[in-house]
Amino acid sequence: MTTKENIGFFFKPESIALIGASPNPEKLSYTILENLLNMGFQGKIYPINPGYQEIRGLKCYPNPGEIEDRIDIAIFAVPASIVLEILDGPVENIKGAIIISSGFREIGPEGKEMETRLKEILDKKGIRAMGPNCLGIYDTVSNVDTFFIKSDKVERPARGGVSVLTQSGSFAAMIMDELANEGAGVARVVSYGNKVDVDESDCIEFLTDDEATKAIALYIESVGNGRKFLAAASRCVQKKPVVALKVGRKEPGARAASSHTGAVSGRYEAYEAAFRKAGIIEVESYEELKDACKVLNRYSLAEGKRVLIITDGGGIGISIADACEEAGLRVPEIPDEAVKRLKEKLPVFASVKNPIDLTGSVRDEHYIYALQEAFREGYDLAIVSLLWGPPLLTPKIAEKIRDFADSCGKPILICSPGGKFSREMASALTATGMPVFFTPDSAVRAAKVLCGGIK
Amino acid sequence: MTTKENIGFFFKPESIALIGASPNPEKLSYTILENLLNMGFQGKIYPINPGYQEIRGLKCYPNPGEIEDRIDIAIFAVPASIVLEILDGPVENIKGAIIISSGFREIGPEGKEMETRLKEILDKKGIRAMGPNCLGIYDTVSNVDTFFIKSDKVERPARGGVSVLTQSGSFAAMIMDELANEGAGVARVVSYGNKVDVDESDCIEFLTDDEATKAIALYIESVGNGRKFLAAASRCVQKKPVVALKVGRKEPGARAASSHTGAVSGRYEAYEAAFRKAGIIEVESYEELKDACKVLNRYSLAEGKRVLIITDGGGIGISIADACEEAGLRVPEIPDEAVKRLKEKLPVFASVKNPIDLTGSVRDEHYIYALQEAFREGYDLAIVSLLWGPPLLTPKIAEKIRDFADSCGKPILICSPGGKFSREMASALTATGMPVFFTPDSAVRAAKVLCGGIK
Repeated sequence: MTTKENIGFFFKPESIALIGASPNPEKLSYTILENLLNMGFQGKIYPINPGYQEIRGLKCYPNPGEIEDRIDIAIFAVPASIVLEILDGPVENIKGAIIISSGFREIGPEGKEMETRLKEILDKKGIRAMGPNCLGIYDTVSNVDTFFIKSDKVERPARGGVSVLTQSGSFAAMIMDELANEGAGVARVVSYGNKVDVDESDCIEFLTDDEATKAIALYIESVGNGRKFLAAASRCVQKKPVVALKVGRKEPGARAASSHTGAVSGRYEAYEAAFRKAGIIEVESYEELKDACKVLNRYSLAEGKRVLIITDGGGIGISIADACEEAGLRVPEIPDEAVKRLKEKLPVFASVKNPIDLTGSVRDEHYIYALQEAFREGYDLAIVSLLWGPPLLTPKIAEKIRDFADSCGKPILICSPGGKFSREMASALTATGMPVFFTPDSAVRAAKVLCGGIK
Repeated sequence: MTTKENIGFFFKPESIALIGASPNPEKLSYTILENLLNMGFQGKIYPINPGYQEIRGLKCYPNPGEIEDRIDIAIFAVPASIVLEILDGPVENIKGAIIISSGFREIGPEGKEMETRLKEILDKKGIRAMGPNCLGIYDTVSNVDTFFIKSDKVERPARGGVSVLTQSGSFAAMIMDELANEGAGVARVVSYGNKVDVDESDCIEFLTDDEATKAIALYIESVGNGRKFLAAASRCVQKKPVVALKVGRKEPGARAASSHTGAVSGRYEAYEAAFRKAGIIEVESYEELKDACKVLNRYSLAEGKRVLIITDGGGIGISIADACEEAGLRVPEIPDEAVKRLKEKLPVFASVKNPIDLTGSVRDEHYIYALQEAFREGYDLAIVSLLWGPPLLTPKIAEKIRDFADSCGKPILICSPGGKFSREMASALTATGMPVFFTPDSAVRAAKVLCGGIK
């Protein structure tokens, strides 16, 4: 039996039981049920609570054993001690558990003992489990949402190509909220907390062969089994890009991680070496991981690191060029012949170097001319920076750039800084599926990821 | 006559003439007049255009010489050749000019010659000038706005403490738009373009003694007179913090700068050394400069670099701690005695280390307890990170934190990531004047600036 067969059912469940279901809107389980219903999950949903006959129109069961059906995912939204009690009872029909309850290893020796007992019970019963102390799964492919946070507090991203794996639930919520807010999607998000059973390596193995996942983003406090991780990641990067943020790199962060998910961060240098060996692209900050998610939703890695920069504002072009060079990307000049051809088609005051500055006289089509002509000169990717001051620029440029990006086969990243008006204009680009970045630095971080993270 | 007397009138003008004024909404000058009126400028406004008797209810003059009044600022919104023609005519009543017109040094030899002639005329007539190829002044103190970009395209920040000096107009517009959008203010913004006369050093000299300016942010492509700059900056940093972003640090950016404002970027190392010598805090990116503006609106520099981190989400606390250590800040542990005191007052599962994780059980007052108790232990500044998932957290925390910040005399920075809901919650904090940052990295960049940029 491969690991894929092992945990694949978490990502295509036909039945979900919610242990601790409640009609009380103040309970976490109420929010989970609401999210599952909102998400349009197509399988069976079984609320479980001995105190109710029915919750939100669904028949309620006193315990999982009463359900005459296989339960692919049993979500445990009950106190830690009750988790153990229930799992120790008749649960032969449960394949997988998502234990959101906290009060385990992260709280100290007493919790650690509880977690050891939990593991023993799970092993004995052959139940695979995510958590405890986690949010579980948000999945735009199977329409599952086990997060106990309301969607008006944390927005849910639409379907995209990147799957996110994380120990930290608050990290999962934060990045989902921000990606949704910036118009970017995700495939599947897994928050596995203390990792009593399912860990990042299990998930990577599954996602390696998952067609809905184009790339994987990892938030790592600790890896328990380094050998397993290396094997899984090395196989995965043959098929799709894997980026990772290791947190707890320095002592204060490591200290915090230990009381967060009970993680032992270990020597950062060991992680760094493992990432390099496996071919994982390491990112250095939360922002870089978010930028990576946005760009990997649309593009796979670039063939080289020669960046073409096109803008309509001189200052921002310079900032992008600086940031590129400092990140280890190259911004080579445009050959004279191409400059000549470009000058015929671009605004009279345009500066035809790299960066190309189309100036305030720019029209939509100038961006496309510039891309068409200059891209022939061996550039590997482009950063197209749009300031929306120029009066002749229109949101119609969005589809033109998207169409060109589709046809040219090279990554084109959009940089569109500014406030309300610019965000509205940029939303035309986001709507086409183009990755849009809101600062020069952010666009360059994404470009760096596409070039393998360059070190 | 000191330089302050020389250019101070640009920042408290009693009369402004708009050369090239027009009732045609498609003209840049139309937008300038509209912005001046919207801004509530209290002095006289004189439209100048031989083709009109009156524009927007204001008497229109054929040329500046016809106005029987001193003109503190004459805004030139006419083609380059007309600028020269008018300045060569009867303009004895003009003290200062803001020449927004492009077509000078930035376009090559022909334009360079025009600019040389412009300089000769200005010198002969004793007129001080900003530009050409610039946006001029946005000033929340004197209510002047000479920018030719509509305020629905680029938002205008409210009054704040930071003044921004920049060669690049698009940079000025971009940072103003973003600061306004993030609820941060500015004192005065000057975009001086090609610097035919007034340059960064003149502006720094004026702002050194300007009570409305608490700190200065510089965007530098090039400095013409290094000695003058060093003298002005060295005097200024005795009174208020000065931060600078040097762009065109690397060859491609320098190339672009030369065709942008005709700037010769020069060796970056020379700038770096000059900044250090003058005591200027150098920032490394656009994002860092923006973060600096936000934090310096409220705080002056911290006394040391010992950072206290308080959060309600474990993952984000770790990310902040990592970023602090990597930036050269310190995140020292909380002494045992203080931990004991804190544990009595904080949620039962709270992790009382540094970072302090108040967990999802947090109430508003826990943040205040934590600040009160832990701040006694020698920390120099705090980063307070708020995730808005915890159900008992309310926007009322904003005033509580602000009040504590007012009383404790140490900088407290807010980190509040997330999408729509979080931004709304965070706006309660922004409204109190607290600086709010939307990623862990951003908050740490600001903290780094408060610690002198640490190198």
